[in-house]
Amino acid sequence: MTDVVDATPSPVRLKAVAGPGQPEPTPALEQLYRGFERELLVPLWTEIGDLMPLHPRSKAAPHLWRWNKLVELASEAGRIVPVGRGGERRAIALANPALGGKPYATPTLWAAIQYLMPGENAPEHRHTQHAFRFVVEGEVVWTVVNGDAVRMSRGDFLPQGGWNWHAHHNAATEPMAWIDGLDIPFSYYTESQFFEVGREQISADEQCTPDRSRSERLWGHPGLRPLSQPDAPAASPLLAYRWVDTDRALSDQLAMEDEGHADATLATGHAAVRFTNPSNGRDVLPTIRTEMHRLRAGAASRTRREVGSSVCQVFDGTGRVTVGEQQWTVARGDMFVVPSWQPFSAQADAGAALDLFRFSDAPIFEALHAHRTQVD
Amino acid sequence: MTDVVDATPSPVRLKAVAGPGQPEPTPALEQLYRGFERELLVPLWTEIGDLMPLHPRSKAAPHLWRWNKLVELASEAGRIVPVGRGGERRAIALANPALGGKPYATPTLWAAIQYLMPGENAPEHRHTQHAFRFVVEGEVVWTVVNGDAVRMSRGDFLPQGGWNWHAHHNAATEPMAWIDGLDIPFSYYTESQFFEVGREQISADEQCTPDRSRSERLWGHPGLRPLSQPDAPAASPLLAYRWVDTDRALSDQLAMEDEGHADATLATGHAAVRFTNPSNGRDVLPTIRTEMHRLRAGAASRTRREVGSSVCQVFDGTGRVTVGEQQWTVARGDMFVVPSWQPFSAQADAGAALDLFRFSDAPIFEALHAHRTQVD
Amino acid sequence: MTDVVDATPSPVRLKAVAGPGQPEPTPALEQLYRGFERELLVPLWTEIGDLMPLHPRSKAAPHLWRWNKLVELASEAGRIVPVGRGGERRAIALANPALGGKPYATPTLWAAIQYLMPGENAPEHRHTQHAFRFVVEGEVVWTVVNGDAVRMSRGDFLPQGGWNWHAHHNAATEPMAWIDGLDIPFSYYTESQFFEVGREQISADEQCTPDRSRSERLWGHPGLRPLSQPDAPAASPLLAYRWVDTDRALSDQLAMEDEGHADATLATGHAAVRFTNPSNGRDVLPTIRTEMHRLRAGAASRTRREVGSSVCQVFDGTGRVTVGEQQWTVARGDMFVVPSWQPFSAQADAGAALDLFRFSDAPIFEALHAHRTQVD
Amino acid sequence: MTDVVDATPSPVRLKAVAGPGQPEPTPALEQLYRGFERELLVPLWTEIGDLMPLHPRSKAAPHLWRWNKLVELASEAGRIVPVGRGGERRAIALANPALGGKPYATPTLWAAIQYLMPGENAPEHRHTQHAFRFVVEGEVVWTVVNGDAVRMSRGDFLPQGGWNWHAHHNAATEPMAWIDGLDIPFSYYTESQFFEVGREQISADEQCTPDRSRSERLWGHPGLRPLSQPDAPAASPLLAYRWVDTDRALSDQLAMEDEGHADATLATGHAAVRFTNPSNGRDVLPTIRTEMHRLRAGAASRTRREVGSSVCQVFDGTGRVTVGEQQWTVARGDMFVVPSWQPFSAQADAGAALDLFRFSDAPIFEALHAHRTQVD
Repeated sequence: MTDVVDATPSPVRLKAVAGPGQPEPTPALEQLYRGFERELLVPLWTEIGDLMPLHPRSKAAPHLWRWNKLVELASEAGRIVPVGRGGERRAIALANPALGGKPYATPTLWAAIQYLMPGENAPEHRHTQHAFRFVVEGEVVWTVVNGDAVRMSRGDFLPQGGWNWHAHHNAATEPMAWIDGLDIPFSYYTESQFFEVGREQISADEQCTPDRSRSERLWGHPGLRPLSQPDAPAASPLLAYRWVDTDRALSDQLAMEDEGHADATLATGHAAVRFTNPSNGRDVLPTIRTEMHRLRAGAASRTRREVGSSVCQVFDGTGRVTVGEQQWTVARGDMFVVPSWQPFSAQADAGAALDLFRFSDAPIFEALHAHRTQVD
Repeated sequence: MTDVVDATPSPVRLKAVAGPGQPEPTPALEQLYRGFERELLVPLWTEIGDLMPLHPRSKAAPHLWRWNKLVELASEAGRIVPVGRGGERRAIALANPALGGKPYATPTLWAAIQYLMPGENAPEHRHTQHAFRFVVEGEVVWTVVNGDAVRMSRGDFLPQGGWNWHAHHNAATEPMAWIDGLDIPFSYYTESQFFEVGREQISADEQCTPDRSRSERLWGHPGLRPLSQPDAPAASPLLAYRWVDTDRALSDQLAMEDEGHADATLATGHAAVRFTNPSNGRDVLPTIRTEMHRLRAGAASRTRREVGSSVCQVFDGTGRVTVGEQQWTVARGDMFVVPSWQPFSAQADAGAALDLFRFSDAPIFEALHAHRTQVD
Repeated sequence: MTDVVDATPSPVRLKAVAGPGQPEPTPALEQLYRGFERELLVPLWTEIGDLMPLHPRSKAAPHLWRWNKLVELASEAGRIVPVGRGGERRAIALANPALGGKPYATPTLWAAIQYLMPGENAPEHRHTQHAFRFVVEGEVVWTVVNGDAVRMSRGDFLPQGGWNWHAHHNAATEPMAWIDGLDIPFSYYTESQFFEVGREQISADEQCTPDRSRSERLWGHPGLRPLSQPDAPAASPLLAYRWVDTDRALSDQLAMEDEGHADATLATGHAAVRFTNPSNGRDVLPTIRTEMHRLRAGAASRTRREVGSSVCQVFDGTGRVTVGEQQWTVARGDMFVVPSWQPFSAQADAGAALDLFRFSDAPIFEALHAHRTQVD
Repeated sequence: MTDVVDATPSPVRLKAVAGPGQPEPTPALEQLYRGFERELLVPLWTEIGDLMPLHPRSKAAPHLWRWNKLVELASEAGRIVPVGRGGERRAIALANPALGGKPYATPTLWAAIQYLMPGENAPEHRHTQHAFRFVVEGEVVWTVVNGDAVRMSRGDFLPQGGWNWHAHHNAATEPMAWIDGLDIPFSYYTESQFFEVGREQISADEQCTPDRSRSERLWGHPGLRPLSQPDAPAASPLLAYRWVDTDRALSDQLAMEDEGHADATLATGHAAVRFTNPSNGRDVLPTIRTEMHRLRAGAASRTRREVGSSVCQVFDGTGRVTVGEQQWTVARGDMFVVPSWQPFSAQADAGAALDLFRFSDAPIFEALHAHRTQVD
């Protein structure tokens, strides 16, 4: 320990420039700025334009990743990169082109494709970062959560609240890919993360999965709460939301709209559900909102801006999406990013409905009373 | 608009290296990594050590700023840098030496000294960033909040919830300095900020201040809620917490301890109060916790680690503080930073009590169920 | 209007008696008591024993009503008492034998058998009292809630939050009986009730019911929230909880117990679910808790005391129940009352499981921080 | 224990009468009604008019008690009725003339004058009923709460959350009277109350009171929360709200109104504060709302109806109050009752302001989402 203030060179660099709201660039100002640098100080007046804009100006860029490219590279990784302790997961993250090569889809969200070869196990660990899996294609992989094996099949959504032990096992004869969403960048930035390594080997009976996990048998009945379970946990105790339910919920909304009940859908031709924690009705994870949207063939969503960022994956169908200045045609598995406060809309092609899975950091802003939405 | 994926060079750079948990650095791996770079992908296995540590390892460093240096430079800025629209405030921010020269005291918190010359006005604006002022010395400056003029004097704490119009005015014949705390880095990082410019001139009657602001006359009576006011606002409707009250609250706790009521203080010889929103009893601002601590002469606090970061200013007295590996003697006005999960303790010198003002980002973690504290 | 205090005889009657804690019965005391009577005053010391007992001593008595008797009388009422505006419903309420002949099952809860003849309509109205229907036998009656027709079949539970328009229609060729539970006594006692008469005739299309109500199509998918619906309503937006789901949830718990997961059930051999509002995970009605319990053949519940009262109906099976000093053998449809703080337990007969539907006023006490439970 | 249903005569009495919504009074109906009586059943159709009115029709009557009468009788009780264990308190309750002579000011609220002779002690006990004291005149009595002695003086308001030990001691040479408000009728009706007898003798040092109680030294500083205290308790941890603060808060509102800030008061010339729990900003007690209102000389309140009942005491001044069909001139100490949904207004005489202390059961209805207010 030491009582002396550190003498390493200051990282602060200030330059007196002319401009509106800026002081005259005089020698005295230059000298003042040298003093600021020496004492590790930065004036507001040189930074305010970037730091405090009139509205969010995201550093992130809208960007699209094609599913065939993701699968191709993940599959090659499956061939040559083993899964095991240390690396922990064969997960390959989307790196937003405007975020300096970091593995961040957006400033707050991690989105990755995870790939598991037949018979492989991803070792057990736990972390405070909240996570989910969403399966765009494939069958017969299981995530084992605190000893409860959860089957993963196309369309299934599996939330994974922080600090639960989990491992993955591929019991099939084919490789399988799915996407992982986490709040890794947010936890990293706010420096709030803990991690712990688990057992080297999950037990045999955890690899032999019943059709439904215990979590589904306890919590998967609509509106019914098991009295044996303690009070509302912050993250969902239900570990799988099956496609059959999600699909039916969306179909029901559109059918009701057809029957004349316009208020059953979010907007004309636009059905949508949010995955929620059945113990409290809130978002499935404290920091991540997850939703499934369905646009009827030919229908378009309204254009929407929102504080905070999101990532979408096309679950089914084809269409066009617009994010800020970008527009793309999209098909099954394609993933794209909507930065904070950028206008976003989607339109299904004439021939088929468009199903979009979407996750965002909205719960953070709602919890802190900082949420804003603008619908055109 | 375009349907073509951007062709600028990828910012992703991957290097195959040998090591535990890393795949063999073969030509095939190199080729895979080139594919990742091209497609803007980053594997977890090369990043996990930094991204998902066993516990928070803050990028920020413990650091101390001496008050006399801060005032000396702020005063020089007072001489040569005008205050006005564009620069908005003569505020000079602490730049943590480990955060790349950015004006961030910690990854989430902004801490600055603000300086106003006699007769000067800092122009009216509003922003969603939450703010407060704390006055370590001086008198007779007013902050005008939505037309309510709030006097600032030594020891006073003035919270400023987001999106309220505010301006400052120095009605004295002397310059005055105080500190500003804001969640600017957090808002910047999460891309959730809005800003609006106000009137060029605040009215004359707003510069002629009564002893107590309207906010204090409405909300400053202990436990009494004015029925004319709407339901609990997210940020405190009370715009000034006067030193006379804070001081008395701390003295009362120590006096009760002397009388044998050990549970009146946080620990032996350690009195502490939190500034709270009287409409709901919660933190005064949705993202910032603010507290005043008093250690009796010779007393020491317990050592504490906490998820999230904080900034302290010595309000009165002298003592020694320890943050991680650093230790400093401190005196009136000195400011220092406690990074996430670094152990922190303070000790008053034998001759006098030590009064410490402290602010932190704890409400963010509590709202998201991510708070952890360890007291040794 | 008048400024004169009313001169009608005082209802207060006081008698000076000897006893512990009582003042000496002297002429002066008698005179004082006459003064109290005249001025409409009652001293605490004559009342405290009854008013402020050491623990709740319910005025209500444990009591059992046999289903065959209820149906027999309801059926006779079906023959001779028409349903229509004014009487509103052919509902026949349990009158606790210790509550003075009032139609109260317990001090706070109303429990009635409702009976509807083929083709009959019970007219539309709404009231702030919260209600539910539970169907122990029968089919093909519908409750129409705000124009949404909800089919009622054996085992179905239908909550009905206050201030929703509703009517009933029997579309079958047989009469049908079900039970109604409401907070009528509580609303009556606290004087908080409003009532409004609806349309004389519900429309034809409201009498032509699809298999699932719109409420189920919107809210009946586990963990999925329709984005078209506004924020969490105080009473459940899901208007039917189907027996197929309830039955499966209970079976699942017992199956998991069989597989070695003891924490899946409330106690050994005792499965239980609570009907909850899917928008917030809380009780389905703000004042009424509703649950379904299943005891395996031969299993017994633990003995439990609780602040507040409840009413149970045997849905299936046979067994013995003990309430305070009372014990009864019970069979399908039988209803009984558990007064506040009376010990309650149930045991299934050796031959078959016992399914018990239970409703209580527990949410009132939880909302007011007055709940207490004691499990032996 | 017994398996036989009780054979005591049924308390149910039904009478077939002609009338709208009533079945034809035939012999068959009479026979049905005899069956109902035998089986302890009551049909809705004979009761609905009273049970489910269009809006609350309170059983309670508006009524006024004159302070001089209350004090006169309490003083006589002081002379001849000792205070001690068993009777517990020399408290004399208002018995609403329309509530059958029961010691209930309204169906849910208890209001009493309590009287203590010089040197007397009211013995220690605790109960789950929530209570408060309000002092319209007198000095130098103390309530000792969990060993913390709280001085009582004119204008002071002392809340007493359920299940805290408390005793009273009169240290003066004069008798003293104050009013007690409790939720005794509500607890009694809902059968949720517990009671425990305390020490026979409070200790000498508990009778030697400092100017401020420990609770005030911990919690009586506006907006400051002692860090030593645990999370927000359901009832206020602040045990005295001093008149000096209440008076100043009301004066401040009227002064602000004079300065042109119309939104500082509830209505023109009408200042009002609510006593709140400083740990959460909510009502000071979970079941009782307490407020102080001040009408300027000559000013009148708006007419207001509210679900739930209240009791008022004139703290100072003279005026006229209107409750339903009743109107009274009132002066210091007079108490009156406002039944549920009855219109209420007050007007100060031309010569002086009117200060009204008011308590109600509003928190019960707000917690259960059953509150309604109508302001004309």
